[in-house]
Amino acid sequence: MEGHPYFPQDLKLPGFVPNFTSASSILGIFAAAFAVVFSVSWILPGLFTKTTKLERLLICWFTITGLIHIIVEGYFAFTPDFFKDKTGFYLAEIWKEYSKGDSRYASFDSAIVAVEGVTAVVWGPLCFLAAYAIAAHKSYRYVLQLVISLGQFYGLVIYYITAFLEGDHFSSSPIYYYAYYFGANSPWGVIPFIIIVRCWRKICESETRNKIKVK
Amino acid sequence: MEGHPYFPQDLKLPGFVPNFTSASSILGIFAAAFAVVFSVSWILPGLFTKTTKLERLLICWFTITGLIHIIVEGYFAFTPDFFKDKTGFYLAEIWKEYSKGDSRYASFDSAIVAVEGVTAVVWGPLCFLAAYAIAAHKSYRYVLQLVISLGQFYGLVIYYITAFLEGDHFSSSPIYYYAYYFGANSPWGVIPFIIIVRCWRKICESETRNKIKVK
Repeated sequence: MEGHPYFPQDLKLPGFVPNFTSASSILGIFAAAFAVVFSVSWILPGLFTKTTKLERLLICWFTITGLIHIIVEGYFAFTPDFFKDKTGFYLAEIWKEYSKGDSRYASFDSAIVAVEGVTAVVWGPLCFLAAYAIAAHKSYRYVLQLVISLGQFYGLVIYYITAFLEGDHFSSSPIYYYAYYFGANSPWGVIPFIIIVRCWRKICESETRNKIKVK
Repeated sequence: MEGHPYFPQDLKLPGFVPNFTSASSILGIFAAAFAVVFSVSWILPGLFTKTTKLERLLICWFTITGLIHIIVEGYFAFTPDFFKDKTGFYLAEIWKEYSKGDSRYASFDSAIVAVEGVTAVVWGPLCFLAAYAIAAHKSYRYVLQLVISLGQFYGLVIYYITAFLEGDHFSSSPIYYYAYYFGANSPWGVIPFIIIVRCWRKICESETRNKIKVK
């Protein structure tokens, strides 16, 4: 195969094999998996513990983001030559498609791999622990959510700053730029931020309550 | 000036001007500044508030690391051409010297600049807030220390992983590799980690104490 759909066009990707699956099919499979995981993680904790609606939403979030970190991002971080995949393997298809929004994935940029690697290996498993901690009302539930969310948010900041510093020319078209590069990442720009603020407040409240009681 | 002392040797640094100051002088000035800041930040809070020795040590740490973030790292993150400095300016001298341990500073590598920029602009000022919060026993003191320390630690992890992924060939000699690349960064590999563990425990203890009291 000659050539690839990524920008900058002079990017060298010897052995590149184009997508087998259309963008809408990739998204469709993702949406179906999302719906299944969301439903299970919404219903399951309710059967075993008393949880508020907000807690169940948080359990859904940490289950879904944890699975994405470990499976989707984990596959990328340890598969430098995913763009050569000839089998139509779904995870390779995802990253071939996403690279149209940011070719630094196809070129296995070290900053991206470092952030994705830490996300897959550290934050991913901790997300499941967070889901458990919320369901079981563990004393570390707020601090753990805060740690993970800060890690996710900082990772995203590094992701955007490095692209900006290198000229922000990694997207094949404005549609990919806004839909993939910004759109697909937007949940991790918003949700971790909200969780950080909430957990910060919860931790401070707990500290203040103790102070008052000690007096 | 032709040539530079950095590795890899084919690194292009047009307009490079060598160090004016010896490594020992750079270190001497740094040590003197360290001693002054340490002494002041050790003595000062004791005059105004009741603090334990550990709290005063933490105040010293956050004052020193905050100043380093804002002044030393802040200068680097916003001075892409420090290696051309002809005036012998101390901060340029520091980075010209440090680049012998990691030439990605001289080449203004985007991952380094992103991490150093966030460290200078976000963690730096927050360090001063942390020093104040510890002295004033604010309810957010533990969570703030944890957030900063996690940011510092994650930054260092990205720093090492990116170097590793790119072949770890940025040091001029084994001495610079161990003294600068590892040695100079070692405080940020150890101290933030200890602070994270301590604050995590403090936050969980506070949460547990509340639970018991509520019962």
